[in-house]
Parts: sequence; structure tokens; C-alpha cells
Amino acid sequence: MTWTLARRAERMNPSIIREILKVTERPGILSMAGGLPSPDSFPVEAVQAATQKVLREAPREALQYAASEGYGPLREWVADHLARHGLRVQPSQVLITAGSQQGLDLVGKVLLDAGSRVLVETPTYLGALQAFAPFEPEFVPVPSDDDGPLPEALGDCARGARFFYVLPNYQNPSGRCMSEARRAALAREAQRLGLPLVEDNPYGDLWFDAPPPAPLVARDPEQTIYLGSFSKVLAPGLRLGYVVAPQALYPKLLQAKQAADLHTPVFNQRIVHEVVRDGFLDRHLPAVRARYAAQRDAMRAALERHMPEGCRWNTPVGGMFFWMRLPDGMDAMALLEHAVEAGVAFVPGAAFYARDPQPGTLRLSFVTLTPEQIERGIATLVQVLRATADPRRSP
Amino acid sequence: MTWTLARRAERMNPSIIREILKVTERPGILSMAGGLPSPDSFPVEAVQAATQKVLREAPREALQYAASEGYGPLREWVADHLARHGLRVQPSQVLITAGSQQGLDLVGKVLLDAGSRVLVETPTYLGALQAFAPFEPEFVPVPSDDDGPLPEALGDCARGARFFYVLPNYQNPSGRCMSEARRAALAREAQRLGLPLVEDNPYGDLWFDAPPPAPLVARDPEQTIYLGSFSKVLAPGLRLGYVVAPQALYPKLLQAKQAADLHTPVFNQRIVHEVVRDGFLDRHLPAVRARYAAQRDAMRAALERHMPEGCRWNTPVGGMFFWMRLPDGMDAMALLEHAVEAGVAFVPGAAFYARDPQPGTLRLSFVTLTPEQIERGIATLVQVLRATADPRRSP
Repeated sequence: MTWTLARRAERMNPSIIREILKVTERPGILSMAGGLPSPDSFPVEAVQAATQKVLREAPREALQYAASEGYGPLREWVADHLARHGLRVQPSQVLITAGSQQGLDLVGKVLLDAGSRVLVETPTYLGALQAFAPFEPEFVPVPSDDDGPLPEALGDCARGARFFYVLPNYQNPSGRCMSEARRAALAREAQRLGLPLVEDNPYGDLWFDAPPPAPLVARDPEQTIYLGSFSKVLAPGLRLGYVVAPQALYPKLLQAKQAADLHTPVFNQRIVHEVVRDGFLDRHLPAVRARYAAQRDAMRAALERHMPEGCRWNTPVGGMFFWMRLPDGMDAMALLEHAVEAGVAFVPGAAFYARDPQPGTLRLSFVTLTPEQIERGIATLVQVLRATADPRRSP
Repeated sequence: MTWTLARRAERMNPSIIREILKVTERPGILSMAGGLPSPDSFPVEAVQAATQKVLREAPREALQYAASEGYGPLREWVADHLARHGLRVQPSQVLITAGSQQGLDLVGKVLLDAGSRVLVETPTYLGALQAFAPFEPEFVPVPSDDDGPLPEALGDCARGARFFYVLPNYQNPSGRCMSEARRAALAREAQRLGLPLVEDNPYGDLWFDAPPPAPLVARDPEQTIYLGSFSKVLAPGLRLGYVVAPQALYPKLLQAKQAADLHTPVFNQRIVHEVVRDGFLDRHLPAVRARYAAQRDAMRAALERHMPEGCRWNTPVGGMFFWMRLPDGMDAMALLEHAVEAGVAFVPGAAFYARDPQPGTLRLSFVTLTPEQIERGIATLVQVLRATADPRRSP
């Protein structure tokens, strides 16, 4: 073969999660592995109505090439929507992307050289590691506790870092939400250190009892790139997200977007704008929150009922995930094999660490199973866990 | 500001064409500037019917996350479609992308290091230069004639090149189509030199009198990446294209795709599959070809009627563009200013050269104006041209 690969291709790897999903999503498996929102939450009728309207009223525009920045009215909607979260941005700062995953790719492309330091949480979102990795950065994990990354740890690792990638709301994978105090301290410390932030917020609207504290970007808009998504509040199959960037950075991100795919499908943008323009999310999200909260409650109850001594987990107040630590010495990857045989699945946590993977961690999604399935899934998982911890017992 | 840009960001620039389009697409301008297909060719009713069917029959799948490779039945359709063009590929070699522009980005990401040599035609597609440029290659223009790049010139520049980017059918911008003999000679020489090819074919189905010769990839599938698109045969606003890659390269392109945006909107993929699955293109394309051929005829007639001595142009046998050389010493960019004032627009050719831009060249698109508008547009352009060449005459 005469093909020579770029050096960066060595840094690209199959997503272990996608590989696991292939195994775990075969029929009959109770999967708590996916990061997928519940399809029961998809607003099918609203999408149907919006699609018909768009194709009736503006078919030529919806099917033609369009602006790389994104569809104007949708950019305005995003700016208005963020204003309600305490964030003042101009529509001209909004770049519509193919999901927020593309936002991560564009950020990496514009900001990372080989060897650039990128700070990440411990653990962090695997998709961000994959988006940034081809640009060959050096990942620096920032020590974290249940409240998020530790501001006092930044001083040691911020020097020369291009940015700190943070996911403050109901983080994937840990489910944790940064407290107001932690956000304030983190923002203050980042400002003091001149450390830019890349804030990812796909789950912020999926709170259960109370909205999360204001985003970091509201505290220092000039030093923060903010990423949002329609995947978790409407539907991921439309692939719509957005980047909000300081005016000084916007042109380069736009040029990277142009080079990457010219523009995000304007057909999809017009449909989503049609769906959300008249306050649809205000009516839709309470139902999604209630659904996910009930599923969270079911998983919490099942964990409390079944889990043996030595297992520890958080209780998320929003989002889609529980994060668990197995008893010392247990390996989640080994556990997964037996779990799949017994008909349940989860994602081992090791892949979410930029360095020093913790083999005893795992992520459990509660949004795609019914409360009854969750009860059954957790009970089965615990049987497997006991049998694995004590091989004389079989699940 | 505390942001530090990646070195590659210096290689990103605003698309001169998109900047020009902003000026030239104001109402009232007869624009021959765009690279846009005619919206009259969009199959609006078929898209409407397909969308309703998809949302009725598979809403949960159409709106959910999906495989990074693309929608299985669409990948199969692409493989079948290409088989009719003499190209034998497995569906497993097909990667669905956000337009073929994203295919170019992924190819660059996987194959180009800073300083890698990339051979390109003279002139070449600007979007490819923009897609590859952030990966900091050294572009090497291959001398070309009206038949395409000169095979005998490859020996001098192929050494160590990562690939040769070619657009054999009705090239953007030159409109030229490589003859069978030229393709054979080029493929032979590339094979002899061990030079991989990246073959871009967005316009191949837009032939007027006879289909183009078989693609280069059919001659050496192991040494060629092939890019296709639904933008010119259906509608660009859906942003659907595909990469066909040798099995050895496919996994890396797939990983780059995953990192870039997880997957192409499966909603759009299912709609397009629904539109094309039963032979729709066989009924649709003849009408598009007839429309574009009539417009090509109108532009040829207008050029022959009005153009002064010293202007030279080709006559495309497919695609969307005429390519013109102005009389010696004239500058197309300067001409454009006066043309826009007089109410017509085109794209200066200089931006399509990787090196040594030819200021006397320009590209004329014939697909978005009626034959009457084309006649009027060319007549006006010639008035401006005469006035610019001889400032005593005013247009």
C-alpha cells in the first residue's frame, strides 16, 4: 500500500464506547450503557409539523446551500434562549454546528498545536478527548472531587495551557453538577491565571428539582467558549448544536467550519427553529425532566436496595448518568463481560480518564429503560457483581 | 486576550468566493457567480413524501443517534449506484459524510502532516484547498491543458506526495472533462509512481450528451479515495455526500468522522435513501441535464454573439461552469467591481490556483439564470468589459 498516514492518525482510535455499544445493544439486553436520550422524549409530531411547514413555505431555501454561520433566525433564538440563562451574547457570536461534537472538533482545530496543553476534568467526556486528540495535545487531568475540578489545583497545571475543557452540568460520565461556590472559585482562578475555558453544556436543561447555577461563560465571556446542543432536549439524529465564541475568536472558528463542511444542513436548522420558536421547549422540557427524574429515582432506589457494601455512587440531580465505584480490586471491564452474558450492560469508566484510568469505575445511564427495567437491570447487575467478587456463586 | 491560536489557524482564511457571493447576491444582480445548483431542480415533492414516510414509519430511529459509518441501506444504495458507473465497491467501504466537503476535511486530517506535498490541478477546486490548508501541506500545482492535468508532468512532482487531488468530470472551476485517453494515461502514471489519488466527483451525473468516461478509481481502487455527493443531483441543503475508501484506509477515516461530528444526520440519510431507493434519479436526472444543457447552450450562444476578440472560453459538456480567459493584461477582480455596478456578477479565477494565480481568468455559472437572463447577463458583462478595456466608453 502506498498510502502514508498523517502522524495525527496514530492518535485516532475506535471509540471504546461505540465498540461496547455494538455488543451491548443486541436485542434482549437491558442496556444502561448508552449515552442516548430516550426516544420516548422525541417530539415527533412537532418535527412532522415543522418539516411540512418548512417544505411548504421555503423549500428552495431549505434545500439550497446556505451561510456557514448558520440560519439567522436560529442564531437569534439561541442568543435569546441563553439570555434566559443569564448569558448575554449577540447572535453574531453564535455558530451553528453539526452537534456540539463538531464544536469540539472546530475548537481543537483552531486552538491546538501538537504538544499544546489542554486541561480536562477527572474523569472527562470521552468524545472531547477524541475530538481533541487528533490535534496531538498533551492532556492534563485536573484533580476533582464530587463537586467538580479543584480550583486550587489549577495553578500547578495552567501554565501555557491553551484551555480548560469543563462540563459543569450533570457531567458525562460522572453525573456531577458544579456548585455555585465551585463555579465562582473556578472562574476567579481561571481569570487570575489567564486560563481560557471551553464550557460544554449539553445537559443543562435536564435538571430535576432546580436549574443549575449560571454557566461559567456568564462570569467571563471574553475568556470562555460555550458549546450547546439540541441533541438532549429535542433529538440527536438532527445533529444540531452551537458554539458561542468571543468576537475575537469567531472568525477563525467560522473559517474552520467552512473548510470542514461548508455549513450545517439548513433544512434541519429551519425545522428546529420552527419547532422551538414559539416556546415549545417550555412545554416540552418539563415532561422530559419528569420522565428522567422518575427514572433517576428508580435507579437510586434499586441501587440502595441491591448494591452490596463497598460500592459507592453519586445521586445526580439532572442529566442522564449515575457514576459508580466498585469495591476495591474489582475491574469494571471484567465485570462487563459477565454482565452482558447475564443480559445487562453499562460502560466501564476507564475510557473517561485522560490519564491513570480507574478500572473500578462505571457509568450507568437511566434514561432509556423503564423504572421496572431499571429495577431488574440493577438486580441482575448486582447478582453478577456478587458472583464476580465471589466466584463460587454463580449469577 | 489570552487565547493562543494553533499555528494552522494562520492557514485558514475567509473564502473569497463566499465574500464575493455576499456582494453579488443582492437582489437585482444577474449572478453567474454562484456554484449553487438551480433550486428549480430540487425534488421538493419527493423530499416531502419521503420525509413524511420516514417520520411516520421510523421516527425513533430517524431522530436518534446512529452509526458513524452512515445509514446501512444508503451505503448499499451508493455501492449499487457506483456499480452502474463501472465501480465495484463494498457497502463497507462507503462512509456517509456531511457533503463531500467533509470528505475532503477527513482525508486531509488522516493523510496530511505539516509540509506534506499534495498535488493539485491547475486550476483546482477552491473548497479542497480550504479543506486541506489547515493541515499545512505544501500544494504542488500540476501543469494542465484543456483535457486536464498532464500525466508526463507527474514524474517531476510526485516524489513523496501524499496524494494527487483530481476532479475529472466537469471540473469546478474550469468545466473541463478528462478524456478517456487522459484518464488512462494518468492512472497508468500514478500507478507507476505509487501516487495515491483523491478523486472528487460531484458533477459526474450532470452530463449533457454522453456520460463521462469511467472514473479513475475504477482503474486502481486500492490507490484511490473517491468522493461523491447528493448536493448537485438532489439538493445541497441536506448536506449529504460520501467517501469510498480502500479497506485499509477506511477505519482511520471512520475514526476521524466519529471525532468530527459522531455521524451525519440519520434523519437526512433516511430521507435521501427514501427518495433515491426506487430509481428516482433515473427519472429526475434527465430533466436536470436537459435544463442545464439548454442553459449551457444559451451561454455559449451569448458568448459567441457578444464576446470581443481576445476572450477565450471552453464549452463544457456537463456540469455548471464556463471558464474564461480575458484579453492579455485584463484583471478579472477589477472587472468584477464594474460588473457588479452594472448588475452582473461572476467569480474571478485567481482563487482557484494553488500557486501563481492567473488574474485574467474567471468562472461563469450558467445554472441559476434563465436563457433570457443569461443573454442579458453576458451582454451586460461584455459592455463592462469593453468599457474597462477602453475607459473612454462607459457601460
